[in-house]
Amino acid sequence: MSRKYVLGLDYGTESARALLVAIDNGEEVACTVEGYPDAVIDDVLPTTKKKLPPDWALQNPRDYLSVLEQIVPRALKEAGVSGDDVIGIGTDFTACTMLPIDKTGTPLCMTEKFTSNPHAWVKLWKHHAAQPEADRINETAQKRGEDFLARYGGKISSEWFFAKALQILDEAPEVYAAADRFIEAGDWIVLQLCGEEKRNACAAGYKAIWDEGYPGTEFFKALDPRFENVVAEKMRGDIYPAGVRAGGLLPDIAKKLGLKPGTAVATGGIDAHVAVPAATVTGAGKMVMIMGTSLCHMVCGTDKKIIDGMCGVVKDGILPGFYGYEAGQSAVGDIFAWFVKNCVPASIGDEAKRAGLDIHAYLGNQAAQLRPGESGLVCLDWWNGNRCILVDTDLSGLMVGMTLATTPAEMYRAILESTAFGTYTIIRQLEQGGVPISELYACGGLPGKNPLLMQIFADVTNREIRISASDQTVALGSAMWGAVAAGVENGGYKNITEAAKTMARLRDTVYRPKKEAHAAYEKLYAIYLRLHDLFGRKGGDSAMKELKAMRHEFHS
Amino acid sequence: MSRKYVLGLDYGTESARALLVAIDNGEEVACTVEGYPDAVIDDVLPTTKKKLPPDWALQNPRDYLSVLEQIVPRALKEAGVSGDDVIGIGTDFTACTMLPIDKTGTPLCMTEKFTSNPHAWVKLWKHHAAQPEADRINETAQKRGEDFLARYGGKISSEWFFAKALQILDEAPEVYAAADRFIEAGDWIVLQLCGEEKRNACAAGYKAIWDEGYPGTEFFKALDPRFENVVAEKMRGDIYPAGVRAGGLLPDIAKKLGLKPGTAVATGGIDAHVAVPAATVTGAGKMVMIMGTSLCHMVCGTDKKIIDGMCGVVKDGILPGFYGYEAGQSAVGDIFAWFVKNCVPASIGDEAKRAGLDIHAYLGNQAAQLRPGESGLVCLDWWNGNRCILVDTDLSGLMVGMTLATTPAEMYRAILESTAFGTYTIIRQLEQGGVPISELYACGGLPGKNPLLMQIFADVTNREIRISASDQTVALGSAMWGAVAAGVENGGYKNITEAAKTMARLRDTVYRPKKEAHAAYEKLYAIYLRLHDLFGRKGGDSAMKELKAMRHEFHS
Repeated sequence: MSRKYVLGLDYGTESARALLVAIDNGEEVACTVEGYPDAVIDDVLPTTKKKLPPDWALQNPRDYLSVLEQIVPRALKEAGVSGDDVIGIGTDFTACTMLPIDKTGTPLCMTEKFTSNPHAWVKLWKHHAAQPEADRINETAQKRGEDFLARYGGKISSEWFFAKALQILDEAPEVYAAADRFIEAGDWIVLQLCGEEKRNACAAGYKAIWDEGYPGTEFFKALDPRFENVVAEKMRGDIYPAGVRAGGLLPDIAKKLGLKPGTAVATGGIDAHVAVPAATVTGAGKMVMIMGTSLCHMVCGTDKKIIDGMCGVVKDGILPGFYGYEAGQSAVGDIFAWFVKNCVPASIGDEAKRAGLDIHAYLGNQAAQLRPGESGLVCLDWWNGNRCILVDTDLSGLMVGMTLATTPAEMYRAILESTAFGTYTIIRQLEQGGVPISELYACGGLPGKNPLLMQIFADVTNREIRISASDQTVALGSAMWGAVAAGVENGGYKNITEAAKTMARLRDTVYRPKKEAHAAYEKLYAIYLRLHDLFGRKGGDSAMKELKAMRHEFHS
Repeated sequence: MSRKYVLGLDYGTESARALLVAIDNGEEVACTVEGYPDAVIDDVLPTTKKKLPPDWALQNPRDYLSVLEQIVPRALKEAGVSGDDVIGIGTDFTACTMLPIDKTGTPLCMTEKFTSNPHAWVKLWKHHAAQPEADRINETAQKRGEDFLARYGGKISSEWFFAKALQILDEAPEVYAAADRFIEAGDWIVLQLCGEEKRNACAAGYKAIWDEGYPGTEFFKALDPRFENVVAEKMRGDIYPAGVRAGGLLPDIAKKLGLKPGTAVATGGIDAHVAVPAATVTGAGKMVMIMGTSLCHMVCGTDKKIIDGMCGVVKDGILPGFYGYEAGQSAVGDIFAWFVKNCVPASIGDEAKRAGLDIHAYLGNQAAQLRPGESGLVCLDWWNGNRCILVDTDLSGLMVGMTLATTPAEMYRAILESTAFGTYTIIRQLEQGGVPISELYACGGLPGKNPLLMQIFADVTNREIRISASDQTVALGSAMWGAVAAGVENGGYKNITEAAKTMARLRDTVYRPKKEAHAAYEKLYAIYLRLHDLFGRKGGDSAMKELKAMRHEFHS
């Protein structure tokens, strides 16, 4: 019998990626990427060439299909694999990325009547124009004492599903009326692949206030009487955990992709969440950190705990049978990149060039010579606000302790340390809330590039850190869910634990905390935590908010 | 009758300068400089080649005479002026820079017996090894409830006279015993020029706890029984205000310098203090800022007020007949230089080069485009501690408000602004203490180089700022005091006010506060002041001290 494969389709912000993975050992035999032709639509609408208002970010759903027709056949060709040997497909998508569709599942923006209306297009996750609606949702929920607020750190984001849907109702009631459903793009792509609308618990739970049920009609009515039945009327379709077989690949699209009709298609997922089993984690107590420009923390617990300041807790949201907790830091790699772009003198650049290293690596080598506390610096890592545990976008960065002898390497190290303190704060909050975390796992772009960062994270958190072996951990996770959807009877796996045993791997390097370093970091962390509460919590110092308000007068 | 001149001799840290000035209009006809052959002795003692302990800084008094024999004849020659037409000499010196001398006025380090003993050499102002003695002085003064502490911001510095003298007693009692007198180098050079020991009120008042009398013998006895009579035994010589004729130039030295024997020699001064009349200020209520690597604030009042956190208040200390108040910021230009060296990316350097500007000028142009508050940043300007009004070297720098969009020009401007806030804090403290300040005058290296800084100072303090026309304001001040010492009868002036009328000038540029900018700065200053008190005062947050303590474990 020939070797069998699964496809992981990873829909990112700018491009989609297809990862073809051997089912027997997780070997990644091909990886192809293609940018969306219309990319992120934040300037003018392609059809009308009319300028979009500030904070808008749309996408063209046609792109999701057109790139697929390129990356899948190309992956098969590159690997020399026959489509007949692909037994399952898993997908992950940015979220909340949502769109209005008609009865047939056609996006309204692809119909003649609505193609000129920007509200008929896909609202990308980073569409931030629904802030007034988010404010209304939060005020109304608070006034009504809705329980769900606590599950989401006390605040519903403007990026999420109902804020976006409510913006459509507010600004384009004709689109709202014409929409048969509103749907996550991640569920829409599954619908396109297999003709089945099986919405995924992950996006519903983390982005649409779903917790084995949506908020009640009274709440929606309080937002707007016309919104009362948004769930019953506009969000039909049941919710399923990850790894369920949504359906079989439709013949038409199978032909275009070079795959077999009927190939198992898994329910959709969110990028960070599908990375968890691909980092070998299939149970409770092990936190997976997806470390890139920002940092997502994923951990499963056996019980439902309401913990202040988290992004959300969702049953089956990460792994079936567990409560999935999501936390995050809104900027990590982004701060390092900001520092290297804005704060590193030419002399360091020249030295790095002579040493044949990029600036991060060169600064990292210098910073690695320093011991914890040696720089005399502490930062608050809030250059892009604080997502967890303070949930406040108006916070900003702080550095304290500079002297005339302070060096760029010292400042660089202090910034790395501050992001580790941010993660430590999240871990402590989860543990204090009853979700134990014994080990850390990391994936994403940073772990391979920045060994100093990983050692600092281990020393600060006093926990071992293991690194996912795959450079495409997210796409691998989708592929693994595809293997589970295929099922044992078709050569797949009976569950994600079994899939992870053969398909997911770790690197040999383990970052282990050093006792002495952790002891020094506990002292620095005490300062960090004091400043964190002082500048971040109510009743402390409002300097950051006052400064942001003054700045906004010039930058809005 | 030929044109008459005066000589200003300015003894700095690394070099001495001679400025030859026409008496009739202040024209600077020659300026010569020469570095001290032994420079700052902080590594090995020249005679023994033995390593000095950390924090030591000595000088060779022979250098003070040898450079004089070069710079004075050279100045005369360059200007084509006859020594017969020089009617007066004024000097200023770094302080406290002190040395032990024998009965004849010969420095002990120039005697065979003591030339190998580092304690026999000149202790330069920045010799910081007498900290244990300063601590003892402060503890003892506090315990005894000595009034004088309040005059000096509550703390006697390790740089000052009695700390240094006490260190000699502690560590080299044989040098202490052999010393006929301890003397300020600024008074010693006057003694060398005219054979008269007339100690100056400026150095005595600001550096030797003199206030029409030194502390009592009981105080010195409490420090060490052997120290009881330090004043009577080791510091003979009366105290005189500035502009007094100490004596006439001795024939021997007159010959070496190419000057007339008997030429009037004024009592000595301190660099920052003699700058005041050279910036045209000869009365109360006008603050002179000597702006360079650090910032000295000089202002005269008509009454004696004890104001918390000042460097000192001394009768006749700046101008005869007034109470002279000194304040200061321990780093200003030094922070800007630190920023440009450590925090400015290569891209800015390249742009500056293309624009044909140095980095300060280029960044200044960019920062000048910003309005107050636009950066969303505030700093505490404590990179080198806080001299006034907190008097705490363990404080450090702080920056708050950074986002991923923060630019180098924004940070540069925020640092400039923070130094203006530091000065504003000093002005407010003086005014609240009963010393009104209506106008600001500036001299030193920064005002000519950094117009943006000057406008920010005007806007923050809401006061007009005038700039001294001379590039050698300090040396000009010394020359003016020489003209007063010469007296009307010899073609000089009857007092400093008369001298200033003809010899001191201002630039045409006046920096005037802008109403709107000041209003915005009041908002930012409210934040600065809150953070100032939070991190700088007892009962606030001790982050800076904890971080310094951790840092010192590695850097001591």
